[in-house]
Amino acid sequence: MTNIAILGFGVVGGGVAKLITDNYKEVLRLGGDEINIKYILDLRDFPDSPFADKVVHSFDVIAEDPEVDTVIEVMGGSHPAYEYTIRALEAGKNVITSNKEVVANFGDEFLNIAEKKNVSYRFEASVGGGIPVISPMISCVGQNKISEVRGILNGTTNYILTKMFTFGDSFEESLKDAQEKGFAERNPDADILGTDACRKIAILGALATGNLIPTDKIHTEGITKIRGEDVEASAKVGLKIKLLGRCIISDKGVQIMVAPFMLRDSEALSTVSGVYNAIEVVGEPIKSAMFYGPGAGAGPTASAVVGDLMQIMQSGTKCAKPVMNKTDEHLLPFSDFESQSYIAVKGGCENCVKGAFGEVQFIDADGEIAFITAKMSEAKTEEALKALSDKGIEIKSRIRLL
Amino acid sequence: MTNIAILGFGVVGGGVAKLITDNYKEVLRLGGDEINIKYILDLRDFPDSPFADKVVHSFDVIAEDPEVDTVIEVMGGSHPAYEYTIRALEAGKNVITSNKEVVANFGDEFLNIAEKKNVSYRFEASVGGGIPVISPMISCVGQNKISEVRGILNGTTNYILTKMFTFGDSFEESLKDAQEKGFAERNPDADILGTDACRKIAILGALATGNLIPTDKIHTEGITKIRGEDVEASAKVGLKIKLLGRCIISDKGVQIMVAPFMLRDSEALSTVSGVYNAIEVVGEPIKSAMFYGPGAGAGPTASAVVGDLMQIMQSGTKCAKPVMNKTDEHLLPFSDFESQSYIAVKGGCENCVKGAFGEVQFIDADGEIAFITAKMSEAKTEEALKALSDKGIEIKSRIRLL
Repeated sequence: MTNIAILGFGVVGGGVAKLITDNYKEVLRLGGDEINIKYILDLRDFPDSPFADKVVHSFDVIAEDPEVDTVIEVMGGSHPAYEYTIRALEAGKNVITSNKEVVANFGDEFLNIAEKKNVSYRFEASVGGGIPVISPMISCVGQNKISEVRGILNGTTNYILTKMFTFGDSFEESLKDAQEKGFAERNPDADILGTDACRKIAILGALATGNLIPTDKIHTEGITKIRGEDVEASAKVGLKIKLLGRCIISDKGVQIMVAPFMLRDSEALSTVSGVYNAIEVVGEPIKSAMFYGPGAGAGPTASAVVGDLMQIMQSGTKCAKPVMNKTDEHLLPFSDFESQSYIAVKGGCENCVKGAFGEVQFIDADGEIAFITAKMSEAKTEEALKALSDKGIEIKSRIRLL
Repeated sequence: MTNIAILGFGVVGGGVAKLITDNYKEVLRLGGDEINIKYILDLRDFPDSPFADKVVHSFDVIAEDPEVDTVIEVMGGSHPAYEYTIRALEAGKNVITSNKEVVANFGDEFLNIAEKKNVSYRFEASVGGGIPVISPMISCVGQNKISEVRGILNGTTNYILTKMFTFGDSFEESLKDAQEKGFAERNPDADILGTDACRKIAILGALATGNLIPTDKIHTEGITKIRGEDVEASAKVGLKIKLLGRCIISDKGVQIMVAPFMLRDSEALSTVSGVYNAIEVVGEPIKSAMFYGPGAGAGPTASAVVGDLMQIMQSGTKCAKPVMNKTDEHLLPFSDFESQSYIAVKGGCENCVKGAFGEVQFIDADGEIAFITAKMSEAKTEEALKALSDKGIEIKSRIRLL
């Protein structure tokens, strides 16, 4: 008998309890042992829930009960998730989480304690909802020389960008629609400013490199500055705008960022629409593997959490474990990052553009000059943009190409 | 120290040896133990290879050496792969394979012996090349109620269909191009007749259901009858033709098949182009997870083989193991399978079509009558087609819709 405690009885916590109950036969077959949901920690009571008698209001009950093998932390936020996780691990309990914030901030610390205490810390649900990506990255892809892990890591922004692309809507209209459909929060900042994607690429980058880069060192741009005009211009030359998290690994070091990129149709990630997420791992000799699915939602997220539970029940600590050190030691300065850029300016002339950027590809645009530059470093691009600004030319937009 | 033996020093065998050698640091970090390639079994000698001194010509040497922990069978074909696998497992050695034919035919038997002997039998590379799909299906998705596993399982046919769709080429032209580019064998029958995809869906279906359906019981159609006219007509109504393997699971039983299907643009699988493979698992509560990548090639396949080796070295037999029984007990008759169909006929009139099929959606087609039927069983569709034939109307084409 495995006794578990669920911290937080919100949509994910409820989904976990439901999955274990509804699919008990499958779960039992895989885990090989009876599962008992012994406690559910929440501030609220749920008198009408079938799990009403499991609800407790103090974490002490769980931490101090030696029968609890595994704690499932699905509260979200850094605190008290951090403190509860530490206490559970120190008490010799496995911990499973769907909480990307706490993994991105403290994953290194948790994995160290888990190692010391010979228990597991698992976080499949923290990236990509139900999509299996953390576990395959560790167990199936790790023997490759990974040169990049990148992905569409946020369903809300992908929905908004898909809406702008498909219907020609503005950012504001598309955000409003996403909010009405329940795909965006009333306060959508964590999504549209790139914070959520930043945490996820920090986690994926740590799996690929062993280094958990502090999120405040990750260059992060959201999608709020993308205009309908940019979407239209990019479509004209067969490009689609996606918010990407990227961690690029070379002999020189690591480049990690979240920003909108324009993708060619031939890129697998360009085909990922709506609220879907996808993560692509590029390396040798595998070439490329992509993991795709709904990136959020109670059901998919619960699937990932219970998948972690099954793996702990089957293999205990004998599964491959990631190692993370929190460091930005190998991080290259963002000013060195090289890419082509799409740029739109108002005023000036094509020759002024060529004067600043050299040869570019002009895109037909209404009342603006839009163009795609050669591959240049951030530093050089910024310099050329400044040269245009200095001439009184207004920079309307800049989006990098993948 | 783990000693391994590689059976077959072709492209995959060579790729495995190369990956272990080139990425030794990554492999060692994951596996936690030194790896020694002790033997390579091949009929040929390779005097110029760095592995020349490992080559042996008799399997006896390997079977009788108690130091060999793991045998990597990358020979292909049913025999002697079957006999070698049995002997290796019986001798208490783990076996890893990339050989879909031998897994589809004898996977149940191998897994039974492995269980008895407390060793592992793993076959990640048998489906989808380097794409992690077998392991995630077992470890990450198994707790779901799976309602379907389906995929583009053959890169050669997907390349041909992509070529027909993109350039309007005929099947014959596209096949010739695929052969010239090395994507199709000189004898392409196993690919274009669906045999290869049939073995792969048998394996995936067995993972999802526990039942390994004999491949001769799987309804299998290839792509040889698809005409340029069909590709054109389908494009007109926003559909793309893909060769799919499908295993559909319901309370009534299992339906399993390989056939060309027309997919709407909104289907994730419709975006998979060229030689790429993708496998989609549909279930509750995960909704959908898709695994995507190059489905073949020495590098990706070697990545999957070595991934299996890492997992054996980490977890031994403590990983989740699939269970398979060879049976068609739960297989529903194909005549019950229900789908919409695209049909093209020559002669007759729209009213004759309606007489046989009821209400249909007509597609504008040159010199033919093309239409899409309502959802009907195979039996009913065949009956309606016969009614048209009996009137002297020539059936030019029929392709199901997903």
